[in-house]
Amino acid sequence: MFKNKFNVNNISKYLYITFWGDMMRVPNHIGIIPDGNRRWAESKGMTKEKGYDSGLDPGLTLFKLCKEAGVKEITYYGFTTDNTKRPSIQRRAFTDACIDAVKMISKEDASLLVLGNTKSPMFPKELLPYTTRRTFGKGGIKVNFLVNYGWMWDLNQLKLSNSSSAKNVAGNIQSNNISRIDLIIRWGGRRRLSGFLPVQSVYSDFYVVDEYWPDFKSEHFFNALDWYNKQDITLGG
Amino acid sequence: MFKNKFNVNNISKYLYITFWGDMMRVPNHIGIIPDGNRRWAESKGMTKEKGYDSGLDPGLTLFKLCKEAGVKEITYYGFTTDNTKRPSIQRRAFTDACIDAVKMISKEDASLLVLGNTKSPMFPKELLPYTTRRTFGKGGIKVNFLVNYGWMWDLNQLKLSNSSSAKNVAGNIQSNNISRIDLIIRWGGRRRLSGFLPVQSVYSDFYVVDEYWPDFKSEHFFNALDWYNKQDITLGG
Repeated sequence: MFKNKFNVNNISKYLYITFWGDMMRVPNHIGIIPDGNRRWAESKGMTKEKGYDSGLDPGLTLFKLCKEAGVKEITYYGFTTDNTKRPSIQRRAFTDACIDAVKMISKEDASLLVLGNTKSPMFPKELLPYTTRRTFGKGGIKVNFLVNYGWMWDLNQLKLSNSSSAKNVAGNIQSNNISRIDLIIRWGGRRRLSGFLPVQSVYSDFYVVDEYWPDFKSEHFFNALDWYNKQDITLGG
Repeated sequence: MFKNKFNVNNISKYLYITFWGDMMRVPNHIGIIPDGNRRWAESKGMTKEKGYDSGLDPGLTLFKLCKEAGVKEITYYGFTTDNTKRPSIQRRAFTDACIDAVKMISKEDASLLVLGNTKSPMFPKELLPYTTRRTFGKGGIKVNFLVNYGWMWDLNQLKLSNSSSAKNVAGNIQSNNISRIDLIIRWGGRRRLSGFLPVQSVYSDFYVVDEYWPDFKSEHFFNALDWYNKQDITLGG
Protein backbone atom coordinates (compact mmCIF):
# COMPACT_ATOMS: atom_id res chain seq x y z
CA MET A 1 0.00 0.00 0.00
CA PHE A 2 2.71 2.43 1.04
CA LYS A 3 5.19 2.75 -1.79
CA ASN A 4 6.47 6.26 -1.21
CA LYS A 5 6.76 6.83 -4.96
CA PHE A 6 6.64 10.55 -4.41
CA ASN A 7 7.86 12.73 -1.65
CA VAL A 8 4.96 14.75 -0.28
CA ASN A 9 6.73 14.88 3.04
CA ASN A 10 7.79 12.51 5.74
CA ILE A 11 4.51 12.62 7.59
CA SER A 12 3.07 9.77 5.59
CA LYS A 13 5.99 7.53 6.58
CA TYR A 14 5.36 8.39 10.19
CA LEU A 15 1.68 7.63 9.85
CA TYR A 16 2.34 4.32 8.18
CA ILE A 17 4.29 3.20 11.20
CA THR A 18 1.86 4.52 13.78
CA PHE A 19 -1.52 3.99 12.13
CA TRP A 20 -1.51 2.11 8.86
CA GLY A 21 0.87 -0.54 10.12
CA ASP A 22 -1.83 -1.07 12.71
CA MET A 23 -4.58 -1.91 10.19
CA MET A 24 -6.16 1.49 9.79
CA ARG A 25 -9.68 1.44 8.35
CA VAL A 26 -9.35 3.51 5.16
CA PRO A 27 -12.50 4.94 3.53
CA ASN A 28 -13.27 3.53 0.07
CA HIS A 29 -14.70 6.79 -1.21
CA ILE A 30 -13.78 10.30 -0.08
CA GLY A 31 -15.72 13.43 -1.03
CA ILE A 32 -13.74 16.68 -1.14
CA ILE A 33 -15.32 20.11 -0.63
CA PRO A 34 -12.41 22.49 -1.37
CA ASP A 35 -13.90 25.65 0.13
CA GLY A 36 -12.33 28.94 1.14
CA ASN A 37 -10.50 29.98 -2.06
CA ARG A 38 -12.06 33.45 -2.08
CA ARG A 39 -11.53 34.06 1.62
CA TRP A 40 -7.93 32.91 1.24
CA ALA A 41 -7.35 35.38 -1.62
CA GLU A 42 -8.82 38.22 0.42
CA SER A 43 -6.68 37.28 3.40
CA LYS A 44 -3.65 37.69 1.10
CA GLY A 45 -4.81 41.10 -0.10
CA MET A 46 -5.88 39.79 -3.51
CA THR A 47 -9.26 40.01 -5.18
CA LYS A 48 -11.51 36.99 -4.64
CA GLU A 49 -11.14 35.36 -8.05
CA LYS A 50 -7.38 35.05 -7.58
CA GLY A 51 -7.89 32.24 -5.05
CA TYR A 52 -8.89 29.42 -7.37
CA ASP A 53 -5.56 28.83 -9.11
CA SER A 54 -3.95 28.13 -5.76
CA GLY A 55 -6.33 25.22 -5.30
CA LEU A 56 -4.78 23.19 -8.12
CA ASP A 57 -1.62 21.95 -6.39
CA PRO A 58 -3.55 20.88 -3.28
CA GLY A 59 -5.88 18.88 -5.52
CA LEU A 60 -3.01 16.95 -7.08
CA THR A 61 -1.27 16.36 -3.76
CA LEU A 62 -4.48 15.06 -2.24
CA PHE A 63 -5.08 12.78 -5.23
CA LYS A 64 -1.64 11.23 -4.73
CA LEU A 65 -2.13 10.84 -0.99
CA CYS A 66 -5.47 9.11 -1.59
CA LYS A 67 -3.89 6.65 -4.00
CA GLU A 68 -1.10 5.96 -1.57
CA ALA A 69 -3.55 5.35 1.28
CA GLY A 70 -5.56 2.86 -0.78
CA VAL A 71 -8.65 5.01 -1.31
CA LYS A 72 -10.68 3.58 -4.22
CA GLU A 73 -12.70 6.62 -5.28
CA ILE A 74 -12.49 10.37 -4.79
CA THR A 75 -15.05 13.03 -5.73
CA TYR A 76 -14.12 16.71 -6.00
CA TYR A 77 -16.80 19.38 -5.63
CA GLY A 78 -15.81 21.61 -8.55
CA PHE A 79 -18.57 24.14 -9.00
CA THR A 80 -22.35 24.10 -8.83
CA THR A 81 -25.21 25.66 -10.73
CA ASP A 82 -25.72 27.78 -7.57
CA ASN A 83 -22.12 29.05 -7.84
CA THR A 84 -22.62 30.28 -11.41
CA LYS A 85 -24.78 33.14 -10.10
CA ARG A 86 -21.61 34.80 -8.78
CA PRO A 87 -19.89 37.71 -10.61
CA SER A 88 -18.62 36.62 -14.04
CA ILE A 89 -14.96 37.30 -13.21
CA GLN A 90 -15.22 34.73 -10.42
CA ARG A 91 -17.21 32.33 -12.59
CA ARG A 92 -14.54 32.48 -15.27
CA ALA A 93 -11.81 31.89 -12.68
CA PHE A 94 -13.37 28.81 -11.02
CA THR A 95 -14.37 27.37 -14.41
CA ASP A 96 -10.78 27.71 -15.67
CA ALA A 97 -9.47 26.13 -12.48
CA CYS A 98 -11.80 23.14 -12.96
CA ILE A 99 -10.68 22.71 -16.57
CA ASP A 100 -7.05 22.80 -15.49
CA ALA A 101 -7.70 20.38 -12.62
CA VAL A 102 -9.38 17.80 -14.86
CA LYS A 103 -6.56 18.03 -17.43
CA MET A 104 -4.03 17.67 -14.63
CA ILE A 105 -5.63 14.46 -13.31
CA SER A 106 -5.93 13.11 -16.86
CA LYS A 107 -2.12 12.97 -16.92
CA GLU A 108 -2.16 10.59 -13.94
CA ASP A 109 -3.29 6.97 -13.62
CA ALA A 110 -7.03 7.24 -12.97
CA SER A 111 -10.52 6.36 -14.12
CA LEU A 112 -11.95 9.82 -14.64
CA LEU A 113 -15.51 11.19 -14.87
CA VAL A 114 -16.77 14.76 -15.08
CA LEU A 115 -20.42 15.06 -14.01
CA GLY A 116 -22.71 18.06 -14.32
CA ASN A 117 -25.44 19.68 -16.35
CA THR A 118 -23.94 19.77 -19.85
CA LYS A 119 -27.09 21.28 -21.34
CA SER A 120 -26.45 24.62 -19.66
CA PRO A 121 -24.12 27.23 -21.25
CA MET A 122 -22.27 27.32 -17.92
CA PHE A 123 -20.79 23.90 -18.62
CA PRO A 124 -17.31 24.37 -20.14
CA LYS A 125 -17.18 22.72 -23.56
CA GLU A 126 -13.52 21.83 -22.94
CA LEU A 127 -14.72 19.23 -20.46
CA LEU A 128 -17.35 17.54 -22.66
CA PRO A 129 -14.88 14.78 -23.68
CA TYR A 130 -14.63 13.75 -20.01
CA THR A 131 -18.35 13.28 -19.34
CA THR A 132 -18.25 9.53 -19.84
CA ARG A 133 -15.88 7.66 -17.54
CA ARG A 134 -12.54 6.95 -19.21
CA THR A 135 -9.32 5.33 -18.19
CA PHE A 136 -6.16 7.45 -18.21
CA GLY A 137 -2.69 5.99 -17.87
CA LYS A 138 -2.97 2.69 -16.04
CA GLY A 139 -6.39 3.60 -14.60
CA GLY A 140 -7.10 2.48 -11.05
CA ILE A 141 -8.53 4.98 -8.61
CA LYS A 142 -11.89 6.46 -9.68
CA VAL A 143 -11.88 10.25 -9.75
CA ASN A 144 -15.12 12.22 -10.15
CA PHE A 145 -15.29 15.96 -10.76
CA LEU A 146 -18.60 17.74 -10.21
CA VAL A 147 -18.74 20.58 -12.74
CA ASN A 148 -21.88 22.71 -13.08
CA TYR A 149 -23.51 20.19 -10.76
CA GLY A 150 -26.86 20.83 -9.06
CA TRP A 151 -28.51 18.63 -6.43
CA MET A 152 -31.93 19.38 -7.90
CA TRP A 153 -30.74 18.52 -11.40
CA ASP A 154 -29.32 15.29 -9.97
CA LEU A 155 -32.51 14.20 -8.19
CA ASN A 156 -34.95 15.35 -10.85
CA GLN A 157 -33.75 12.48 -12.98
CA LEU A 158 -35.76 10.21 -10.66
CA LYS A 159 -38.95 11.59 -12.19
CA LEU A 160 -37.97 10.11 -15.52
CA SER A 161 -37.30 6.70 -14.07
CA ASN A 162 -39.38 3.89 -15.55
CA SER A 163 -38.97 1.68 -12.50
CA SER A 164 -41.68 3.33 -10.46
CA SER A 165 -42.02 0.38 -8.12
CA ALA A 166 -38.32 -0.31 -7.66
CA LYS A 167 -36.65 0.80 -4.46
CA ASN A 168 -33.50 1.85 -6.27
CA VAL A 169 -32.94 5.58 -5.82
CA ALA A 170 -29.16 5.65 -6.20
CA GLY A 171 -29.34 3.86 -9.56
CA ASN A 172 -31.77 6.30 -11.12
CA ILE A 173 -30.27 9.72 -10.42
CA GLN A 174 -27.93 11.67 -12.70
CA SER A 175 -24.97 10.75 -10.48
CA ASN A 176 -25.67 7.01 -10.61
CA ASN A 177 -22.04 6.36 -11.64
CA ILE A 178 -20.81 7.78 -8.31
CA SER A 179 -20.91 5.43 -5.33
CA ARG A 180 -21.85 5.97 -1.69
CA ILE A 181 -19.38 8.26 0.10
CA ASP A 182 -17.71 7.11 3.33
CA LEU A 183 -15.94 10.31 4.36
CA ILE A 184 -16.50 13.92 3.32
CA ILE A 185 -13.70 16.38 4.06
CA ARG A 186 -14.55 20.06 3.80
CA TRP A 187 -11.95 22.84 3.97
CA GLY A 188 -12.72 26.41 5.00
CA GLY A 189 -14.49 25.81 8.30
CA ARG A 190 -18.11 25.57 7.22
CA ARG A 191 -20.13 22.66 8.53
CA ARG A 192 -22.61 22.08 5.75
CA LEU A 193 -22.94 20.03 2.57
CA SER A 194 -23.97 22.93 0.28
CA GLY A 195 -25.85 20.57 -2.03
CA PHE A 196 -23.02 18.03 -2.38
CA LEU A 197 -24.41 14.69 -3.68
CA PRO A 198 -27.33 14.35 -1.23
CA VAL A 199 -27.98 10.67 -2.00
CA GLN A 200 -24.37 9.48 -1.77
CA SER A 201 -23.91 11.54 1.44
CA VAL A 202 -26.76 10.11 3.52
CA TYR A 203 -24.44 8.01 5.70
CA SER A 204 -21.13 9.86 5.20
CA ASP A 205 -18.94 10.89 8.09
CA PHE A 206 -18.26 14.61 7.85
CA TYR A 207 -14.87 16.09 8.75
CA VAL A 208 -14.23 19.84 8.66
CA VAL A 209 -10.82 21.50 8.31
CA ASP A 210 -10.84 25.11 9.45
CA GLU A 211 -8.05 26.20 7.13
CA TYR A 212 -8.83 27.40 3.61
CA TRP A 213 -8.33 24.97 0.73
CA PRO A 214 -5.27 26.76 -0.75
CA ASP A 215 -3.62 26.28 2.67
CA PHE A 216 -3.99 22.51 2.31
CA LYS A 217 -1.47 20.45 4.26
CA SER A 218 -1.01 16.69 4.17
CA GLU A 219 -1.71 16.63 7.92
CA HIS A 220 -5.30 17.67 7.22
CA PHE A 221 -5.80 14.49 5.24
CA PHE A 222 -4.04 12.29 7.78
CA ASN A 223 -6.00 13.84 10.64
CA ALA A 224 -9.23 13.17 8.75
CA LEU A 225 -8.24 9.52 8.17
CA ASP A 226 -7.25 9.16 11.81
CA TRP A 227 -10.61 10.58 12.93
CA TYR A 228 -12.51 8.38 10.45
CA ASN A 229 -10.67 5.34 11.75
CA LYS A 230 -12.22 5.96 15.18
CA GLN A 231 -15.82 6.17 13.94
CA ASP A 232 -18.10 3.17 13.79
CA ILE A 233 -20.04 2.19 10.69
CA THR A 234 -23.76 1.65 11.20
CA LEU A 235 -25.32 2.73 7.88
CA GLY A 236 -28.23 3.93 9.96
CA GLY A 237 -28.77 0.52 11.59
CA MET B 1 -39.85 37.00 22.21
CA PHE B 2 -38.45 36.19 25.63
CA LYS B 3 -41.37 35.73 27.96
CA ASN B 4 -39.82 33.44 30.56
CA LYS B 5 -43.12 31.58 30.97
CA PHE B 6 -41.29 28.59 32.35
CA ASN B 7 -38.17 28.20 34.36
CA VAL B 8 -35.69 26.01 32.51
CA ASN B 9 -32.87 27.79 34.22
CA ASN B 10 -31.36 31.24 34.31
CA ILE B 11 -29.08 30.71 31.34
CA SER B 12 -31.72 31.84 28.90
CA LYS B 13 -32.08 35.15 30.74
CA TYR B 14 -28.33 35.60 30.55
CA LEU B 15 -28.32 34.81 26.86
CA TYR B 16 -31.13 37.24 26.18
CA ILE B 17 -29.02 40.02 27.60
CA THR B 18 -25.81 39.03 25.88
CA PHE B 19 -27.00 37.65 22.55
CA TRP B 20 -30.68 37.99 21.76
CA GLY B 21 -30.81 41.59 22.97
CA ASP B 22 -28.18 42.08 20.30
CA MET B 23 -30.39 40.86 17.41
CA MET B 24 -29.32 37.26 17.27
CA ARG B 25 -30.10 35.52 13.98
CA VAL B 26 -32.38 32.64 15.03
CA PRO B 27 -32.89 29.70 12.65
CA ASN B 28 -36.43 29.29 11.35
CA HIS B 29 -36.24 25.51 11.25
CA ILE B 30 -34.13 23.27 13.48
CA GLY B 31 -33.60 19.55 12.89
CA ILE B 32 -32.88 17.42 15.96
CA ILE B 33 -30.95 14.13 15.84
CA PRO B 34 -31.27 12.83 19.41
CA ASP B 35 -28.55 10.19 19.30
CA GLY B 36 -26.72 8.31 22.05
CA ASN B 37 -29.61 6.84 24.07
CA ARG B 38 -28.16 3.34 23.97
CA ARG B 39 -24.61 4.41 24.76
CA TRP B 40 -25.96 6.50 27.64
CA ALA B 41 -27.83 3.50 29.08
CA GLU B 42 -24.72 1.34 28.87
CA SER B 43 -22.63 4.05 30.52
CA LYS B 44 -25.11 3.88 33.43
CA GLY B 45 -24.85 0.10 33.69
CA MET B 46 -28.27 -0.46 32.11
CA THR B 47 -29.21 -2.50 29.06
CA LYS B 48 -29.38 -0.51 25.83
CA GLU B 49 -33.15 -0.29 25.47
CA LYS B 50 -33.44 1.48 28.82
CA GLY B 51 -32.02 4.67 27.35
CA TYR B 52 -34.96 5.83 25.26
CA ASP B 53 -37.31 6.84 28.08
CA SER B 54 -34.72 9.29 29.34
CA GLY B 55 -34.94 11.13 26.03
CA LEU B 56 -38.51 12.31 26.63
CA ASP B 57 -37.84 15.13 29.10
CA PRO B 58 -35.03 16.60 26.94
CA GLY B 59 -37.42 16.62 24.00
CA LEU B 60 -40.00 18.66 25.87
CA THR B 61 -37.42 21.06 27.31
CA LEU B 62 -35.96 21.63 23.87
CA PHE B 63 -39.42 22.21 22.38
CA LYS B 64 -40.05 24.94 24.97
CA LEU B 65 -36.65 26.53 24.41
CA CYS B 66 -37.27 26.62 20.65
CA LYS B 67 -40.62 28.33 21.14
CA GLU B 68 -39.06 30.85 23.48
CA ALA B 69 -36.26 31.61 21.02
CA GLY B 70 -38.71 32.23 18.19
CA VAL B 71 -37.93 29.11 16.15
CA LYS B 72 -40.81 28.49 13.69
CA GLU B 73 -40.39 24.78 12.98
CA ILE B 74 -38.67 21.84 14.62
CA THR B 75 -38.18 18.31 13.28
CA TYR B 76 -37.29 15.38 15.55
CA TYR B 77 -35.59 12.31 14.11
CA GLY B 78 -37.68 9.63 15.84
CA PHE B 79 -36.75 6.33 14.25
CA THR B 80 -36.00 5.10 10.77
CA THR B 81 -36.73 2.04 8.70
CA ASP B 82 -33.00 1.27 9.12
CA ASN B 83 -33.38 1.33 12.91
CA THR B 84 -36.18 -1.25 12.85
CA LYS B 85 -33.62 -3.94 11.99
CA ARG B 86 -32.34 -3.75 15.57
CA PRO B 87 -33.28 -6.35 18.26
CA SER B 88 -37.03 -6.30 18.95
CA ILE B 89 -36.62 -5.28 22.61
CA GLN B 90 -34.89 -2.10 21.41
CA ARG B 91 -37.41 -1.57 18.63
CA ARG B 92 -40.28 -1.78 21.10
CA ALA B 93 -38.53 0.67 23.43
CA PHE B 94 -37.82 3.39 20.83
CA THR B 95 -41.28 2.96 19.29
CA ASP B 96 -42.91 3.44 22.70
CA ALA B 97 -40.72 6.49 23.37
CA CYS B 98 -41.84 8.04 20.06
CA ILE B 99 -45.51 7.40 20.86
CA ASP B 100 -45.07 9.01 24.27
CA ALA B 101 -43.15 11.96 22.78
CA VAL B 102 -45.86 12.70 20.22
CA LYS B 103 -48.59 12.50 22.85
CA MET B 104 -46.55 14.78 25.10
CA ILE B 105 -46.19 17.46 22.40
CA SER B 106 -49.90 17.14 21.55
CA LYS B 107 -50.62 18.59 25.02
CA GLU B 108 -48.68 21.75 24.10
CA ASP B 109 -49.48 24.59 21.68
CA ALA B 110 -48.18 23.29 18.35
CA SER B 111 -48.97 22.37 14.77
CA LEU B 112 -48.01 18.70 14.77
CA LEU B 113 -47.18 16.21 12.01
CA VAL B 114 -45.93 12.63 12.21
CA LEU B 115 -44.25 11.50 8.99
CA GLY B 116 -43.12 8.03 8.01
CA ASN B 117 -43.98 4.90 6.08
CA THR B 118 -47.42 4.01 7.46
CA LYS B 119 -47.77 1.03 5.10
CA SER B 120 -45.15 -0.94 7.01
CA PRO B 121 -46.07 -2.97 10.13
CA MET B 122 -43.26 -1.11 11.93
CA PHE B 123 -45.34 2.07 11.96
CA PRO B 124 -47.14 2.29 15.35
CA LYS B 125 -50.90 2.44 14.78
CA GLU B 126 -51.24 4.70 17.83
CA LEU B 127 -49.66 7.47 15.75
CA LEU B 128 -51.86 7.15 12.65
CA PRO B 129 -54.16 9.98 13.85
CA TYR B 130 -51.17 12.34 13.72
CA THR B 131 -50.12 11.71 10.13
CA THR B 132 -51.92 14.76 8.77
CA ARG B 133 -50.83 18.06 10.28
CA ARG B 134 -53.16 19.19 13.06
CA THR B 135 -53.29 22.10 15.44
CA PHE B 136 -53.07 21.39 19.16
CA GLY B 137 -53.86 23.99 21.81
CA LYS B 138 -53.25 27.40 20.30
CA GLY B 139 -51.06 26.00 17.52
CA GLY B 140 -48.07 28.08 16.49
CA ILE B 141 -44.70 26.36 16.14
CA LYS B 142 -44.63 23.52 13.60
CA VAL B 143 -43.38 20.25 15.07
CA ASN B 144 -42.54 17.28 12.84
CA PHE B 145 -41.75 13.79 14.10
CA LEU B 146 -40.11 11.32 11.75
CA VAL B 147 -41.42 7.87 12.67
CA ASN B 148 -40.48 4.82 10.60
CA TYR B 149 -38.95 7.29 8.15
CA GLY B 150 -36.62 6.24 5.35
CA TRP B 151 -34.70 8.55 3.02
CA MET B 152 -35.23 6.14 0.13
CA TRP B 153 -38.96 5.94 0.83
CA ASP B 154 -38.99 9.75 0.93
CA LEU B 155 -37.22 10.26 -2.41
CA ASN B 156 -38.87 7.39 -4.26
CA GLN B 157 -42.06 9.44 -4.29
CA LEU B 158 -40.38 11.57 -6.98
CA LYS B 159 -40.79 8.69 -9.41
CA LEU B 160 -44.55 9.02 -9.13
CA SER B 161 -44.48 12.74 -9.81
CA ASN B 162 -46.48 13.83 -12.84
CA SER B 163 -44.53 17.04 -13.27
CA SER B 164 -41.60 15.45 -15.07
CA SER B 165 -40.45 18.76 -16.49
CA ALA B 166 -40.91 20.83 -13.33
CA LYS B 167 -37.83 21.69 -11.31
CA ASN B 168 -39.64 21.17 -8.04
CA VAL B 169 -37.98 18.38 -6.09
CA ALA B 170 -38.93 19.49 -2.58
CA GLY B 171 -42.62 19.67 -3.49
CA ASN B 172 -42.81 16.12 -4.82
CA ILE B 173 -41.21 14.00 -2.12
CA GLN B 174 -43.01 12.28 0.77
CA SER B 175 -41.76 14.95 3.18
CA ASN B 176 -43.08 17.85 1.09
CA ASN B 177 -44.83 19.28 4.16
CA ILE B 178 -41.47 19.78 5.90
CA SER B 179 -39.53 22.92 4.95
CA ARG B 180 -35.81 23.51 4.35
CA ILE B 181 -33.78 23.12 7.55
CA ASP B 182 -31.45 25.92 8.69
CA LEU B 183 -29.68 24.21 11.57
CA ILE B 184 -29.29 20.53 12.43
CA ILE B 185 -28.19 19.68 15.97
CA ARG B 186 -27.01 16.15 16.61
CA TRP B 187 -26.31 14.76 20.07
CA GLY B 188 -23.98 11.83 20.77
CA GLY B 189 -20.85 13.01 18.94
CA ARG B 190 -21.35 11.50 15.50
CA ARG B 191 -20.83 13.80 12.53
CA ARG B 192 -23.20 12.36 9.98
CA LEU B 193 -26.80 12.75 8.84
CA SER B 194 -27.72 9.04 8.97
CA GLY B 195 -30.37 9.52 6.29
CA PHE B 196 -32.05 12.53 7.91
CA LEU B 197 -34.20 14.40 5.30
CA PRO B 198 -31.58 14.61 2.52
CA VAL B 199 -33.46 17.24 0.51
CA GLN B 200 -34.26 19.60 3.38
CA SER B 201 -30.66 19.25 4.65
CA VAL B 202 -28.77 20.27 1.50
CA TYR B 203 -27.88 23.73 2.86
CA SER B 204 -28.22 23.10 6.62
CA ASP B 205 -25.54 24.10 9.08
CA PHE B 206 -24.58 21.08 11.14
CA TYR B 207 -23.77 21.33 14.85
CA VAL B 208 -22.65 18.33 16.88
CA VAL B 209 -22.93 17.97 20.66
CA ASP B 210 -20.62 15.31 22.06
CA GLU B 211 -22.84 14.47 25.03
CA TYR B 212 -25.53 11.82 24.72
CA TRP B 213 -29.13 12.97 24.18
CA PRO B 214 -30.37 11.92 27.66
CA ASP B 215 -27.65 14.22 29.07
CA PHE B 216 -29.23 17.19 27.27
CA LYS B 217 -28.55 20.59 28.83
CA SER B 218 -30.02 23.94 27.79
CA GLU B 219 -26.48 25.16 27.19
CA HIS B 220 -26.18 22.75 24.26
CA PHE B 221 -29.04 24.53 22.55
CA PHE B 222 -27.74 28.00 23.36
CA ASN B 223 -24.24 27.10 22.19
CA ALA B 224 -25.70 25.81 18.93
CA LEU B 225 -27.68 29.05 18.43
CA ASP B 226 -24.61 31.11 19.25
CA TRP B 227 -22.53 29.15 16.72
CA TYR B 228 -25.26 29.41 14.08
CA ASN B 229 -25.43 33.16 14.63
CA LYS B 230 -21.80 33.40 13.49
CA GLN B 231 -22.31 31.49 10.23
CA ASP B 232 -23.13 33.20 6.97
CA ILE B 233 -26.03 32.14 4.76
CA THR B 234 -25.15 31.48 1.13
CA LEU B 235 -27.58 28.74 0.04
CA GLY B 236 -24.78 27.50 -2.14
CA GLY B 237 -24.33 30.86 -3.91
